[in-house]
Amino acid sequence: MYSELKQQVWQANLDLVKYSLVTLTWGNVSGIDRERRVIAIKPSGIPYEELKPAQIIILDLDGKIVEGSLKPSSDTSTHLVLYNSFQDIAGITHTHSEYATMFAQAGSEIPCFGTTHADHFKGAIPLTRFLAENEVEENYEKFTGKIIVERFNGLNPLDIPAVLVAGHGAFAWGKSPQESVKNSLILEKVAKMALGVMLINPQQKDLPDYILKKHYGRKHGPNAYYGQD
Amino acid sequence: MYSELKQQVWQANLDLVKYSLVTLTWGNVSGIDRERRVIAIKPSGIPYEELKPAQIIILDLDGKIVEGSLKPSSDTSTHLVLYNSFQDIAGITHTHSEYATMFAQAGSEIPCFGTTHADHFKGAIPLTRFLAENEVEENYEKFTGKIIVERFNGLNPLDIPAVLVAGHGAFAWGKSPQESVKNSLILEKVAKMALGVMLINPQQKDLPDYILKKHYGRKHGPNAYYGQD
Amino acid sequence: MYSELKQQVWQANLDLVKYSLVTLTWGNVSGIDRERRVIAIKPSGIPYEELKPAQIIILDLDGKIVEGSLKPSSDTSTHLVLYNSFQDIAGITHTHSEYATMFAQAGSEIPCFGTTHADHFKGAIPLTRFLAENEVEENYEKFTGKIIVERFNGLNPLDIPAVLVAGHGAFAWGKSPQESVKNSLILEKVAKMALGVMLINPQQKDLPDYILKKHYGRKHGPNAYYGQD
Amino acid sequence: MYSELKQQVWQANLDLVKYSLVTLTWGNVSGIDRERRVIAIKPSGIPYEELKPAQIIILDLDGKIVEGSLKPSSDTSTHLVLYNSFQDIAGITHTHSEYATMFAQAGSEIPCFGTTHADHFKGAIPLTRFLAENEVEENYEKFTGKIIVERFNGLNPLDIPAVLVAGHGAFAWGKSPQESVKNSLILEKVAKMALGVMLINPQQKDLPDYILKKHYGRKHGPNAYYGQD
Repeated sequence: MYSELKQQVWQANLDLVKYSLVTLTWGNVSGIDRERRVIAIKPSGIPYEELKPAQIIILDLDGKIVEGSLKPSSDTSTHLVLYNSFQDIAGITHTHSEYATMFAQAGSEIPCFGTTHADHFKGAIPLTRFLAENEVEENYEKFTGKIIVERFNGLNPLDIPAVLVAGHGAFAWGKSPQESVKNSLILEKVAKMALGVMLINPQQKDLPDYILKKHYGRKHGPNAYYGQD
Repeated sequence: MYSELKQQVWQANLDLVKYSLVTLTWGNVSGIDRERRVIAIKPSGIPYEELKPAQIIILDLDGKIVEGSLKPSSDTSTHLVLYNSFQDIAGITHTHSEYATMFAQAGSEIPCFGTTHADHFKGAIPLTRFLAENEVEENYEKFTGKIIVERFNGLNPLDIPAVLVAGHGAFAWGKSPQESVKNSLILEKVAKMALGVMLINPQQKDLPDYILKKHYGRKHGPNAYYGQD
Repeated sequence: MYSELKQQVWQANLDLVKYSLVTLTWGNVSGIDRERRVIAIKPSGIPYEELKPAQIIILDLDGKIVEGSLKPSSDTSTHLVLYNSFQDIAGITHTHSEYATMFAQAGSEIPCFGTTHADHFKGAIPLTRFLAENEVEENYEKFTGKIIVERFNGLNPLDIPAVLVAGHGAFAWGKSPQESVKNSLILEKVAKMALGVMLINPQQKDLPDYILKKHYGRKHGPNAYYGQD
Repeated sequence: MYSELKQQVWQANLDLVKYSLVTLTWGNVSGIDRERRVIAIKPSGIPYEELKPAQIIILDLDGKIVEGSLKPSSDTSTHLVLYNSFQDIAGITHTHSEYATMFAQAGSEIPCFGTTHADHFKGAIPLTRFLAENEVEENYEKFTGKIIVERFNGLNPLDIPAVLVAGHGAFAWGKSPQESVKNSLILEKVAKMALGVMLINPQQKDLPDYILKKHYGRKHGPNAYYGQD
């Protein structure tokens, strides 16, 4: 019944390996079917090379399992908070990809130093605050979602489809599971290049704003002219 | 009719993947047939693994499509300006390759620290200025070409067949599409090694000029003696 | 008679190559059968691609060869000291993996900067002291084991299943040979990301302790809820 | 007649690719048959994937071609000087491998920070001086050999089988072509890890001398006990 969604989410999880975004089982992709009000997500701790489409778990938006015999990803609650808060997204990827995680661990946003960044993210990649001790105790994964939503107060999640969670790793999203994986990949490349910039020229400033907007507009919005249509 | 040129440009685009110079669709190679006064270039946004020789677009030197049903690369105007200004080049590669882009984003030329660099580029890799706001608004891609040409005022483009565009990425060129890809690869390696030099010895100076000229001359010009003629 | 143990240790040694943890023959994995009181270890200097399960050496806990016609790894005495001192471990991996070794050579522990680290190691990765000259002369490999045990005085080896040996490289362990290889891989990733953190933000402090404990507890101990039980 | 030597040198050149030590055609391996007083070396500028054993050039020790229809490597004179001066070596590898070249370009020896280094090189990797202008003009490649020999005055080339040529790249050697390639690979790994040490702990000192000697002695000399004899 949910086989197309499962197939899509399964494929997107395998793309994490293809793009070298994960070590062992450190990452997961989910997708949502907003009409049927269900999400599909990777089961917890299953190696990607053994993962089968039928093992993808289907849950309702309250986190109740609809289909699937395995335990869903331990990060499921975070995904649910994001789907419930960011109404326009339909796929989420969580990774500990190396360079993005360096910035998350360093407590530093990723500044927008160039057009590769601006082509996909309309500004610096935001960083959440650390969770408070009581939030960790109460519901670690749910509050991880909440501090992301809190950080995007005033921002459009589709303009900047990624975030760094302080001391942890990265979440990226998009209009489909596949797009969320691509945004994770782009985030990783942008992070690596930003680290290089900081080493070559520690005083470097952000890309001028009019170039940032031009590049973002080439690929997004009503006047986009990159790609075929 | 243009099948040989298309084949050549198609192959050169695939070499971007072989040499790990591109992520997703972030790069394009073009070639020119100066006798027939046409260029061939990658279509916009098509993944390399799906690209077919027949999809390569043929345009005249004013940018009018001569053959091809897809939209050409969004960077086509930049390529055209370069072909019209640099009369001796016959292939151009644009990438956001990681280390070259770090320098472009850091606002730093790539100094000539060694003979690997000097074997292929007769001096530091130049950096353009940023585009002005009115240039971005008027015609972003055309002015990207113009600031490259402006930067090469007084330089021979075949002596230093690459440039860094501030805040953006790299263009390299050569006497054929293949040679422009090779120069992109060399640029990337030279950039990575230059970053290493700056970390090991931040005060390091350029290679002595007489060694630079010797190495460049071993591979280029009337007294070259590298390779099988 | 020991064919299952040999097979397991053989496979774990090959995983060193799969995970890019070794160059040439610079690494070895061993396993222990605590009931029969024997260990199995890689022979010295044999390339992984030529290694056969039957070549794995079986020794008793005093280091006497029980089965096998080749010389065991030159690091065998270190493995023996660890098995004799850390009663709960059943596999050990020794590597010179690049980033872990950078820290060992730099004389720096690997601070716990993030949850990737905390998921697997309950605190900073400890660093041994240098061996004294008389220890080197008397029995280099045995004393390498002894300074590791000395460093873990007051620590639970299964809480932090890895160590850096000053000026040398890394040892990791676990409840099986396979787990010790995985811990070596995780150590390497954690080391690489820690270096990045130090470059981005040299003043960065450790992850707050309550987050460290939460993450470690998600994957270990009585309340673990990661994976399929 | 020289088919075994050619085969060996051909295989060693291909190993440069296997170990990721070369880009394009930037590297070459040679071997010597000291009884017949000939060397075998890669032809200049031929891509490794097209190279055939029959294309390996045979020259006498004065550089006269004995067998082969292609031009030998442009670095042949350097190899000849080394074979004529270092009587115990039988294989030489020249590369521009990335991390070794960073040090050569930075004008820095590679300090011995750890046992990986000490296992193979009995001390820091030496750096030559720059060639003088008249040496470059007179015979660039021959003087490259001479400044290496000059730098090894007082050193045993088999104790430290590699050198950095200032502003250029690396040469490594050994008792066979294969061993010289392995030493190039080890040099590259050691260089990468040394850069990491300098970033983590810029004040780090060399490995204590008694550990250096112990590790070198484990693998070399009369008391070596690493490997299967």
